[in-house]
Formats: sequence, structure tokens, C-alpha cells
Amino acid sequence: MAQKGALEGIKVLDLTRVLAGPYCCAILADMGADVIKIEQPGTGDDARFFNPFKNGESSYYMNMNRSKRGITLNLKKGKDIFLKMVESADVVVENYRPGVMKKLGLDYEELKKVNPRIIYAAVSGFGQTGPYSQWPGYDLIAQAMSGIMSVTGEEDGDPTRAGGPICDAVGGLTASIGILAALQYRNKTGIGQMIDISLLDSAVSIMTIINQHYLVDGRIPQRRGNSYESGAPMESYRASDGDIVLAVGNDKMWKKLVELMEMPELLEKPEFATVHKRVQNRIACKEYIEQWSQQRTVDELVKIMIDTGIPAAPIYNIAQVCNDPHIAGARNMFTEFDHPVAGKVKVTNTAIRMSETDACVKCPPPVLGQHNDEVYKEVFGFSEAEVEDFRKAGII
Amino acid sequence: MAQKGALEGIKVLDLTRVLAGPYCCAILADMGADVIKIEQPGTGDDARFFNPFKNGESSYYMNMNRSKRGITLNLKKGKDIFLKMVESADVVVENYRPGVMKKLGLDYEELKKVNPRIIYAAVSGFGQTGPYSQWPGYDLIAQAMSGIMSVTGEEDGDPTRAGGPICDAVGGLTASIGILAALQYRNKTGIGQMIDISLLDSAVSIMTIINQHYLVDGRIPQRRGNSYESGAPMESYRASDGDIVLAVGNDKMWKKLVELMEMPELLEKPEFATVHKRVQNRIACKEYIEQWSQQRTVDELVKIMIDTGIPAAPIYNIAQVCNDPHIAGARNMFTEFDHPVAGKVKVTNTAIRMSETDACVKCPPPVLGQHNDEVYKEVFGFSEAEVEDFRKAGII
Repeated sequence: MAQKGALEGIKVLDLTRVLAGPYCCAILADMGADVIKIEQPGTGDDARFFNPFKNGESSYYMNMNRSKRGITLNLKKGKDIFLKMVESADVVVENYRPGVMKKLGLDYEELKKVNPRIIYAAVSGFGQTGPYSQWPGYDLIAQAMSGIMSVTGEEDGDPTRAGGPICDAVGGLTASIGILAALQYRNKTGIGQMIDISLLDSAVSIMTIINQHYLVDGRIPQRRGNSYESGAPMESYRASDGDIVLAVGNDKMWKKLVELMEMPELLEKPEFATVHKRVQNRIACKEYIEQWSQQRTVDELVKIMIDTGIPAAPIYNIAQVCNDPHIAGARNMFTEFDHPVAGKVKVTNTAIRMSETDACVKCPPPVLGQHNDEVYKEVFGFSEAEVEDFRKAGII
Repeated sequence: MAQKGALEGIKVLDLTRVLAGPYCCAILADMGADVIKIEQPGTGDDARFFNPFKNGESSYYMNMNRSKRGITLNLKKGKDIFLKMVESADVVVENYRPGVMKKLGLDYEELKKVNPRIIYAAVSGFGQTGPYSQWPGYDLIAQAMSGIMSVTGEEDGDPTRAGGPICDAVGGLTASIGILAALQYRNKTGIGQMIDISLLDSAVSIMTIINQHYLVDGRIPQRRGNSYESGAPMESYRASDGDIVLAVGNDKMWKKLVELMEMPELLEKPEFATVHKRVQNRIACKEYIEQWSQQRTVDELVKIMIDTGIPAAPIYNIAQVCNDPHIAGARNMFTEFDHPVAGKVKVTNTAIRMSETDACVKCPPPVLGQHNDEVYKEVFGFSEAEVEDFRKAGII
């Protein structure tokens, strides 16, 4: 925990709530930035009320706000206090609906008057501009309008969402990239800027090669179960005790698979002669593979496939992920802290392994207003009496 | 296209192929870095053979390699040429299987001897360390082993993959974050470093709050169609002509919805009294909503919901995404370039909107070896005669 971070010395004011914004700031915090989470006095981030709980503390909140310090501030009553903090901050991140910060007199135009070097990142459902900018944004809304749901699910089934908050997460990752690029630009020029990240834009942007089928060919990609547009055999297959996935990406691997299955006749079949043909005839191809795979267990199959150099994997449930010797062990993807109320809690680590400045969870998340005294006094230079006044007036 | 970029002056040597690595470098290129894509002479990136094609050029490749310059180099024969380029480069990105660069004598330990400031990012399926590090990695493998498939799909259905290359994309985004953070650290200290990004780690890291249910409660999250663990009504609902999604995140919105549906009796029902109760009784809740929603079209429903302040959205197919006035219009999420062979081609834009240095597609992707002369001579100072020799020897 005493390790040096890549972003040491960067001060971030984190006004965000729930998921995409807090996730962005948690990544910056894990990389060493001094992230100060600012919450509404009395209530705090909505996510403090989201399950699952440990000793009454939300571990949803804890996961998204580790490595940060926490203070309270009523932005309406405490506008000047916030502006004072912006003077010496590097980054402000907010995920209010577009227009809310302007109403508070705290939009980018105002903040850059007190600090032209400030980097201001706004994360919203639909972005700061355009006809839908005032629409409320949620992960599910972005999954629906990005087309992700339209291509997820069985061929004869309904549109299906991806089963994690992937649009929120991708929005948070995208915001982190924008902030870090803006820091690089500011290092060279001294100029700050505003970054406008939309959950929907972020979701559309990761659909890259799927969009390409429509943009180039005018063909609308459809749901296709677990199979892919550009490779086959590449989907899930039945074993005797569950399912596995195979990802046979080229002719060389296909040849290896056919040899392994002892079905040399498949190499003679014109319908499987190229990747493109195997994509077209994937159902017939799957039938041959399952004749063989259904005779073997998941463990047997994965072992012989990997030994033969064929990409294969078990389909893990979340317990298997959290207990896997590679994921949880060697790669350290889950990490524990000791929380003042909840006790020992495990959360998911960031995936950014760096040789000099490894990203890691630095400290437990704050209880509401935990660092009011140290942050207002030591970081921003308010006096003991001022902080006492803020407290009495219900501003913090 | 003449716009300034946040990463101007940063020189990236891009050794990557197919998706996650090229996507990472495309983001850096869209933000102004000088990304030099290095491909195998004669064949190039495998993705050059992936559909869909335009005039024989792969638009899969084009999407992932826009904004870059392209050269050819055989890394075995041209090791010294590569080391010469590393001397003046800022970043090297590769996505070979762990160990391949070491065999070539071009791993981080070797590169930092010629340039201690170099930032070296390795993107692989399972990371550089751990028992599975030699396993081949594909998007589908990461979807299976991260648990994403285990929580995607219908309750009574099979594990289902998310219908885009989301693990490849998230791996690319994560690598970009690592590289930019390392740049920030190098600006302060002059020290480069190695970044080790795994597709599987990246996929596990975005499952945050899903993992939390197991890590804190020991409960294994299951597939639950389009519904969420932490909010209801929040899933898809039938309209008269299709489906919509609703994301009713709190009691206030629930009250608005009930008023809109003219079903005040629902507010009296104890089984819908809190978010948690509505999650538990979501199927009963859905039946009430569909009694009402099935009488109306998707367009009618979305309009009245949004007007009432209830988060709702249509479920778009990819054609609707690509033609939407907000997404394609105001937010400029698709952008066109003029390719020397393919002609005019549209690709998906990055989602990073910046007020001073907006990320944008700068130029078309290279045809194989297109910039050999200008890059080897002008950027790296090789002579006309040397480049001619490289060419004759089949090194470039």
C-alpha cells in the first residue's frame, strides 16, 4: 500500500455517483491520484444504499470508491468552498445530467475562470450535446440503444443485455482515457479542457467491427448465439458434464482440431474448406464436434485442447472466477482491505499491471465525510474555525 | 484532420494484430499520437483477410488501423532496424503470446537497454505471468472464463456471450489507460516501464458489482434475462410493435410510472413497496407494466416515458444505431475517410470528445508497407541506399 503510483501528485475532485463516474475515479485512485470523493451531507452517494451489504455498509459503494478519501459538501450552499478547492485541483469529474453544473454556477466555463489548467470530465448518458442530451442514462439504456442487445442472445430469441454493467464500465474506462490524454496535453501546453463522455457513445464505440458490417455492406448483424461473424468453429459446445468454448481462428488450428477428433474426412469436405465456409456451415460443423466433445468432460476437453494448441476454455461461473488460481492467485484480481465498519472486504482489482507503478487498491473507501477535517484543513487550507462553521451551517 | 491532438509528439511502434492491440493503438492515433503500424512483409496483419471487404480491402482492418502510418518489417531479419527505431520511440505495443518477443531478443529488458524511457505494453489473453499465461487468448475465451457468459442470457437458457467483441475492446481500452498513466509517470521521472494487460483480467475487472455478490455474500449471480440485481422495474417490456427497455431506478420514478399507467393500486401493494421488493417480485411487476405497454407502440412509449422523466429507450438494431440523428448526427460517432484502394469508407469513431484536442480519425489506414519510404527515411534517418537494401533482402 506504500507503493508509488503513476498518478501521484494529481488531485481529483470526484462529484460522481453510482457507477460509471465512480469507476473512472477509482481507476485514477488505484493508479495513485489523490481522489477526493465529494458527497451530499447526510445521505451521500445513492450507491451507499445498494446491495450487497456487509455490516450495513454497501459493498457496491465500497467496490467503486476504494482508494479515495471522502468529504461532504452541499454544492448549492458551498459553491465558494468548491471553487476554492478547484483552484488547486487538477481534475474534476461529475456525472450529473447535462445542465445541472451550469445551474449550480459550477460548469467548466466557471471553473476555468478560477483555474485555467483544470481538466473537467463530464460523464452522462447521452453526452452534453445533441437532441437526446437531456434523456436520463442508465447502463440498460446504453445497451439497448447501442445495438448491443440486438446482437446478444439466441438466433430465435429476444434481444438480450450483456449480463454485467458493461456500458457503465466502458464509459468509466473511456473517461479515464480522456482525462489522462488531457493531462498529457496540459503537461506540454499548460492548457486544461473539458471532456464530454457519453455512456451511449462509449457503447457504440466498442461495437467497432459489428457496426462495420452495416457501414460497408448494408447488412444488419443479427443475434447468433455464441458464434462469431468472422470465425468458426468458434462458439460453445456440449461436453458430458457442461459446456466449453472453442475459438478455432484459422486453418492451422482447424487442422489440429480435426486430427485431435480423429475425423480426417472433415478436411476433404468443401463446406469446411475455409474459415468463411465454416462460418456459413457452422451448425453442421458443430454437430461433428459435439459427436466427439459430448463423450468427454469439460476438464478433459480443455486439457487436451490446450495441450494441442487449440484455444479452448471452461465457461466459469462467478465463484469459479473468484477462486481460480490464475485469476485470483497469480493475477491478483481480487484484493482485500480492512474497512472501519464492514471489516475485511474483498473487491475486484483493476487490470492494469505496471512494472514500476502497479495499479492497486490503496485504502478502504471512506465512510460518509470521513476525511472532512484532514482534507478541508490540510489539503485546502481552511481553518479549524471555518470547518466548524461549515459543519454548523450544514454545508458539509 | 489538421486539428491538434492531445498526444502529438508521442511516437508509438505498433506491432499488434487483429483486435485488442490495434484498437488500443487506434485510440492513441485518434488522439494525435504518431502510430507506426509494423506488419510482416508480404502478408501483414491477419485482419487484412477478415470480412467485410470493400474493393478487396478488409474494413475490419481499416476500422482498427485508421489514423496510423504503416510499414513492413520482418522482426527476425530486421531486429537491429527495430532496435534503432526504439531508440527514438516513446511507446511499443505488442500482442504476441508471452515469450515470443523474448525469443526475438526484443522483450522489454532488451528494449530498455537502448531506451530506458520506453513504455512497453504487452496485450495478451492471460497476461505475462501465471499458470495460464501460455494459453491462447481470444475474445470468446475471455467471455467464458470471466463469468460474463455465466450471467448473460435467459434464466432457463444457456450461458451466452455478449454479442460484440467486448473483451477485446475492453482489453484495448485498459491498455490505453496503462500507457497514458505510464506517460504521466515518465513526464515526472524520466522512467519508462512495462505494462502487462490481459484480456481475461480486463474482462474480470469490468464485472465489479457482479463479483461483489460472491465476494461478500457467497452468492453466485445467475443469468436473469434483461433484469438487474439492484433495480426494478429495469428490463425489457413488450410494446405492440416490438420491445422497449425501462430503467426505473428509484421510488420517485416508480411513482411516476404508476401514475402514467393509471394504476394507483400498485402503490398500495407491499410487494412493490421498495426497490428491493420490486426486484424480488419483478415478474409480477412486469405483468402489470405489459398490460399497459402492449397497448402502445415503441415510439409512443419512449416519447411519453421520456416526457415524464422515466428512463426508457427503444432497442435499436445496428442500422438504427448507424442512422440515428443523435448518435450518427450530433455525436458524430461514424466518420468517413477516402482510402486509396477502397474509396470512401465509414468507420466507428472514438467516444472521447475533448474541447481543445478532440479525438478524431486523422487519416485512412495504410495499405501494406505504404509508408516504408517516408517512415524509414524521414522519421528514423535510414538512407535511401539502406532502405533499398532492406527491400532487396526481404527485410521490409
